[in-house]
Parts: sequence; C-alpha cells; structure tokens
Amino acid sequence: MVSKLIDKIQKTNAPIVVGLDPKLDFIPDRIKDKCFEEKGKNLEGAAEAFWQFNKEIIDNIYDIVPAVKPQIAMYEALGIPGLIAFKKTVDYCREKKLLVIGDIKRGDIGSTSEAYAIGHLGATEIGGRKFSGFDEDFATVNPYLGSDGVKPFISVCNKEDKGIFVLVKTSNPSSGEFQDRLIDGRPLYEIVGEQVEKWGQESMDGAYSNVGAVVGATYPEMGKVLRDIMPHAYILVPGYGAQGGQGKDLVPFFNKDGLGAIVNSSRGIIAAWKSDKYSEFKEGKVGEAARAAALDMKKDIEQALF
Amino acid sequence: MVSKLIDKIQKTNAPIVVGLDPKLDFIPDRIKDKCFEEKGKNLEGAAEAFWQFNKEIIDNIYDIVPAVKPQIAMYEALGIPGLIAFKKTVDYCREKKLLVIGDIKRGDIGSTSEAYAIGHLGATEIGGRKFSGFDEDFATVNPYLGSDGVKPFISVCNKEDKGIFVLVKTSNPSSGEFQDRLIDGRPLYEIVGEQVEKWGQESMDGAYSNVGAVVGATYPEMGKVLRDIMPHAYILVPGYGAQGGQGKDLVPFFNKDGLGAIVNSSRGIIAAWKSDKYSEFKEGKVGEAARAAALDMKKDIEQALF
Repeated sequence: MVSKLIDKIQKTNAPIVVGLDPKLDFIPDRIKDKCFEEKGKNLEGAAEAFWQFNKEIIDNIYDIVPAVKPQIAMYEALGIPGLIAFKKTVDYCREKKLLVIGDIKRGDIGSTSEAYAIGHLGATEIGGRKFSGFDEDFATVNPYLGSDGVKPFISVCNKEDKGIFVLVKTSNPSSGEFQDRLIDGRPLYEIVGEQVEKWGQESMDGAYSNVGAVVGATYPEMGKVLRDIMPHAYILVPGYGAQGGQGKDLVPFFNKDGLGAIVNSSRGIIAAWKSDKYSEFKEGKVGEAARAAALDMKKDIEQALF
Repeated sequence: MVSKLIDKIQKTNAPIVVGLDPKLDFIPDRIKDKCFEEKGKNLEGAAEAFWQFNKEIIDNIYDIVPAVKPQIAMYEALGIPGLIAFKKTVDYCREKKLLVIGDIKRGDIGSTSEAYAIGHLGATEIGGRKFSGFDEDFATVNPYLGSDGVKPFISVCNKEDKGIFVLVKTSNPSSGEFQDRLIDGRPLYEIVGEQVEKWGQESMDGAYSNVGAVVGATYPEMGKVLRDIMPHAYILVPGYGAQGGQGKDLVPFFNKDGLGAIVNSSRGIIAAWKSDKYSEFKEGKVGEAARAAALDMKKDIEQALF
C-alpha cells in the first residue's frame, strides 16, 4: 500500500494529507441550517452537516492532494449517525481516488487488535463471503500494548495490501510526559521507533514499509533522529499549521529522495474559510478556501524542501 | 460514578465484570441461523446474532454482577451494523441497571480526546439540547499521549458523573515491551500509575476516584506495587480465566477494605456453554452456562479473598 501512496504523492507533487476533522463550529450556517431542516436538530442533522461539509472539501481537493485523514473521534462524538457519516466520507474519498488514512489510534491485545484491524482495514468472513466494515487504506495505531497489539494489524496489512502508522512521538505539548522519558539514556519514543523499523521489515513494499510512524511537526529535532532510526518508515506528520509547525520544520522528516514523509493539516485547510487570510472566501465558500489553503501549504513545503 | 460501582459491588457481593466480547465462534447455531435468516448472511445478520447472544447473557447475569464490559473492537469489526449492536447492548444493560464499562481504549490529544469523551461518556450540544452518542458509564483510556489525552476525559467525568480506567499494565504477554522499561530505575507502568493517582485527585468520589486503572491479573506482583502507588484508584483487572489468571492471583489488587478492584472475565463466562466444565449446558444454553460460570468465578474470588 505504501507504494500506492508514494505514487499518488509523486503524481500530485504534494506530500500532503488533508485532515477531515469536522466540528459544528467549522461548518457554515447555510450547510447546518439545511441539514437540521432535513434531518432534525439532533445527531442525525449534525452528522449530515459533517458529511455535506466534507463533500464540499473533497470535491475541491481530490485532484491536488494524494490522501485524506478523517479523525474518527469527531464522528464518534455523534454516535451512530456520526459513524455513518464517517463511513460515507471514506467511501466517497475512495470513489474520488483519494487514499484514506483512518485516524483511529486503536490498539489492544491479540484477537481484539485483530478485530480492529479487520473492521478498519480488512474484512469479516460470513458464510464464505467477505464483508468490509469501514475499509480505510491506512489506520493509525497506538503502541502502548507492544507487539501483541501491533502485529495483528500487520497481518491484515499483508493480507489486504493496507498500511498503518504507529504513534511514536505525538505533536501535543504533553507528549513528552511518557514518550520522552529516558530508558538506558534514550527516550521512549526512540525505543518505539526502533520497534517500528523492526515491525516494518515484516511488510516491505518497495523501498518503504507499510508500517509507518506518526511524529509531530512540532518536534523537528526529534524528527531528525527518528528519520535515521526508521529509514524504511513513512512518517505521517501532524501538527503543521494550526498546531504551530511550519514548512521549514518539516525538512528533517524527509529522506534525501524527497520522500519519506506526508504532512497533515486539518483545521488550517478545512476551516480556512473562517480565517482572515482567506477572507475572500467568506460566506461559507468552504471548498474553494480549502483548495487555496492546500495549494499554499504545498508551496510552503516545496519552498522548504527544495 | 465510582461510588455507584462500589455500591453495586457491595449489593451483589461480586467484584466481577462480565466482558461482552462476542465472536461468531462463541454463538450457537440456533441463534446464528435465525439471525442470518432474518437479516441476511452479512454484517447485519452477524450483528443481530451478537445482540441476541448478548441479550441471553445479560438476562441471566444482571441480578448477580454489578457491571459489564463490552469490548467495542468486536463490534467495530462488523462496521456500522456492529456498532448499532454495541449501542443496543449498552442501552439494554443500563435498562437492566448494570453499569457499563466501554472497553474502547481511546486516547488522542486535546479536542480530539474530548470528542471521544463526549461520544462515549458525555453529550453533544445541538441547538441548546444535549444528545448522547453511546452513553457508557465508564470508558478505558490509553495514556501514551500524556495528560493532554487523559484530562479531557476527566473533565467530562466530572461534568456527567462518569469514570475512566487508564491502561497502566496490560495483561498481554508483550505488555512489558514498553511498559516494563526502566526509567530512573523504575518501570514505565509505575510512572503511569503515579500519574493515574495524580489525575485521580481531580475526580474524587468518596474514598476512591473516578480515575481508575487497568492492571492485568497475569501480573500479580506488579499489581501489588501498583495497588500501593495508586491507593485511590479502582483497578479493573482483565486476564482472569481464559488468559491464565486465577483467584489467588487477584488478592494483591484489592485493598484491605475488600474493595479497590473489579475483575473481568469475558470468554470464560460468555463462551462457558462451549467448555467441558459446563457440558450440562450444551445445546447452546448460553445464558444458563454464563450464570453458572459467573457464580463459580464469584466463589473462586471469595475463597481467595477471605
């Protein structure tokens, strides 16, 4: 699967993933009012607004970026109707040939991790036929439970040609609380990074592995070290834009071949229409503003890298 | 919320939680055949079988145990129909006055963790009214992202009188890969345990906190140390029964007041009808066998504790 991602990145010339993390605050009234009228001022109406909002963004970015990353928590907040909107979003993105990284941060033990892997990347066999639950292309995985939690995902990746990104060093301020603690003089995130490289050997796909890593743009020095520790891992880099990371901070995450990293922006793109910088797109021109912000992000990264 | 749990434990005299983790293999043909006929040999049919299977168990145990713990991964494996069965199960358990621990092992950063907390323990406000997504009583939380990931759950717990159990030392064989690594001479799980005790101060409810911990029955010596480090945390103990833990292993998880721990069994109860020990319940008497196994587990724990 990672070779497909690289192919898409090279074709669009954009190592960018758009985070589809809707919130009611990000959605213009014209969409919300219509959806509440049609489905009710309830979870169903809010979920419909999420979906309509996403659709406008997807329709305006699918030809310029390789991938999207819906954050399932936002949808889960709305219960079943929200998860139906998540599934619709995944299906529509795949129809538009966007690769879908399910930001699900799951992780459990043995058969339970396998159940998550099957639900998001694989299929359940019922009466000799296979049925997919959510069917993303990639999923993010939490490593706290060790190999027992990660390997069932790798098995499903190998069977279905899918990929994962394992949390190594997250972008948030308190990520150091446990991740930076020193073990034999080295921070935990390096130990996890070493495991990611090891796990990755079980799922190579060209020069890179289907087992990637999440490392926050907010920690570029750590990114540099982790780049060396995990030469075969594609790095998914959150924290650009709204969380504070800038183009120049991204350089250490890339390999010399110009590959090896894909940078996420969520709010900076999907809520661009609300920011001063894109004020020409006011009145809720969500999709057009998202496109402009994605193109600006592409330029910012290009300038930093070359 | 933890005071409600303690009250239920004292009334039933059973520090036991039944893990509702259905798999098609655990479900007798009479249920599967009926559900496949009604809903089709597909995700809908399988999800209906999960729900009918759960209902037979719930109807036979609700008066003898205080709580259940549905493992959401099993339902997520079946996509949206599975999650609808999860929600039905949660609602039915609450109707039967069972406390529901959503075993969701979620954890993300800031507003994303908040979205999970809202979806599982809280409510979304839409047009001035509040709507719950899944509405469990407790949820399990992964600590790898630090305080940013955990505190949004605590806020929702305080607002809605709910609780969480934070993963500290999990029951699986590879849990030591990261959790046991030494930091200043002490294993990571102790450092996490100390944080749990600290976080717990922000949500006290009587002698215990709404912030509990997950510590596997398979590691009783570590349980003893963690019991001391987290005097106010209720410990959710998985790994009893099928995973190898026995009654005598549970003693260190309890405080001298006989409280402080609740022990989970999943397969050992819900799939009891398939085991030789309960062969009198063959022919798919799921509920009766589950009740017998739960009563045996209660006796095993009682004998070990007193």
